[in-house]
Amino acid sequence: MQQFLPLRMQLSSQLLDAAVKEFSRLPGIGKKTALRLVLHLLKQENKDVKQFSEIISRMRDEIKFCTCCFNISDNDLCTICLNPGRKKEIICVVENIRDVIAIESTEQYNGSYHVLGGVISPLDGVGPDQLTIEPLISRIATEKTKEIVFALNPTIQGDTTIYYIRKKLNDPAIRFTTIARGISFGGELEYADEMTLAKSIRNRLPVDSYIQ
Amino acid sequence: MQQFLPLRMQLSSQLLDAAVKEFSRLPGIGKKTALRLVLHLLKQENKDVKQFSEIISRMRDEIKFCTCCFNISDNDLCTICLNPGRKKEIICVVENIRDVIAIESTEQYNGSYHVLGGVISPLDGVGPDQLTIEPLISRIATEKTKEIVFALNPTIQGDTTIYYIRKKLNDPAIRFTTIARGISFGGELEYADEMTLAKSIRNRLPVDSYIQ
Repeated sequence: MQQFLPLRMQLSSQLLDAAVKEFSRLPGIGKKTALRLVLHLLKQENKDVKQFSEIISRMRDEIKFCTCCFNISDNDLCTICLNPGRKKEIICVVENIRDVIAIESTEQYNGSYHVLGGVISPLDGVGPDQLTIEPLISRIATEKTKEIVFALNPTIQGDTTIYYIRKKLNDPAIRFTTIARGISFGGELEYADEMTLAKSIRNRLPVDSYIQ
Repeated sequence: MQQFLPLRMQLSSQLLDAAVKEFSRLPGIGKKTALRLVLHLLKQENKDVKQFSEIISRMRDEIKFCTCCFNISDNDLCTICLNPGRKKEIICVVENIRDVIAIESTEQYNGSYHVLGGVISPLDGVGPDQLTIEPLISRIATEKTKEIVFALNPTIQGDTTIYYIRKKLNDPAIRFTTIARGISFGGELEYADEMTLAKSIRNRLPVDSYIQ
């Protein structure tokens, strides 16, 4: 009986093969999806494909990190740090640039950011020195920081990082806060884990503040 | 109460924004996936990203269609047409290059191909003239074709195309075949459509040939 053979995509063009290989290196893109993307690009106008290719190359060359908050930036300072409308005295400490984008998309925050580049995780070999904690401390010394909002993922590593920075910056003039933990909107009480439910009962809110 | 706001990703870098826009134009790639891909590329070595960018640009410029079978190719003739080990007297007629790849990956076929570029579909404005039927006819006149295997999708349009080409090429020296229709491996009889089940009963196979 006919045996199943392994899927070996043989392509009639080496360039096509090379392009599919490059695309399938991207996270979450398999060989079949890569082929679909490449065949799509082949059907596009030459100038559109040129633009796509150019932007990838330029992006890698020109994008840098903001020297103040370590967000991704085109210049030495990012657009958020340069924006005079944003409050410099509130700093939101996040793990990575994706968190900045997530918070920005809520349109609820008007302060500045500080991207740590990770969280303290001894098991993964990440100590405070690998993160941008030193620059945060020197930044706070020069700016008149009033509040530091920790927006880290609620994990042991995140909590350790909060604890470490809190200890380091032991300044009574600064208010230290963290984003609220609790039951997600749309979540169900009976399926929530005990830790979350416990914290959300302990940190219960007055209804008047909630419905504002 | 807090209203839900539309997801507006604001990025701190215009280059990043442009790169995300370019990626999210690809089929099946949304803004969030595009961002993930771009941030992945930013973390790669500069030379790897350059290579990725270059291959996209080169591919669009240099890939052409094989002048014989209309498969995608780096040169005038594709690697399948140039391969002396492949039987030129058997031609497998397919709709597009994806079908060539699918058949190649079975490692069951050792003839040549002919990519039609579509199927006859009057409703979509696709007539025989839009397809590579004329080149197929002149190809058959010069090559000593013994068999034409139609590997088109089992639709009205596919069947119409088979019928049209069959009529045009009315040559008794050529054997016309089509890939077998029947119950898919892993499929269940009770959920198969009547047409497929009817065809699979009518074209039943001797068990001896099946288990070979």
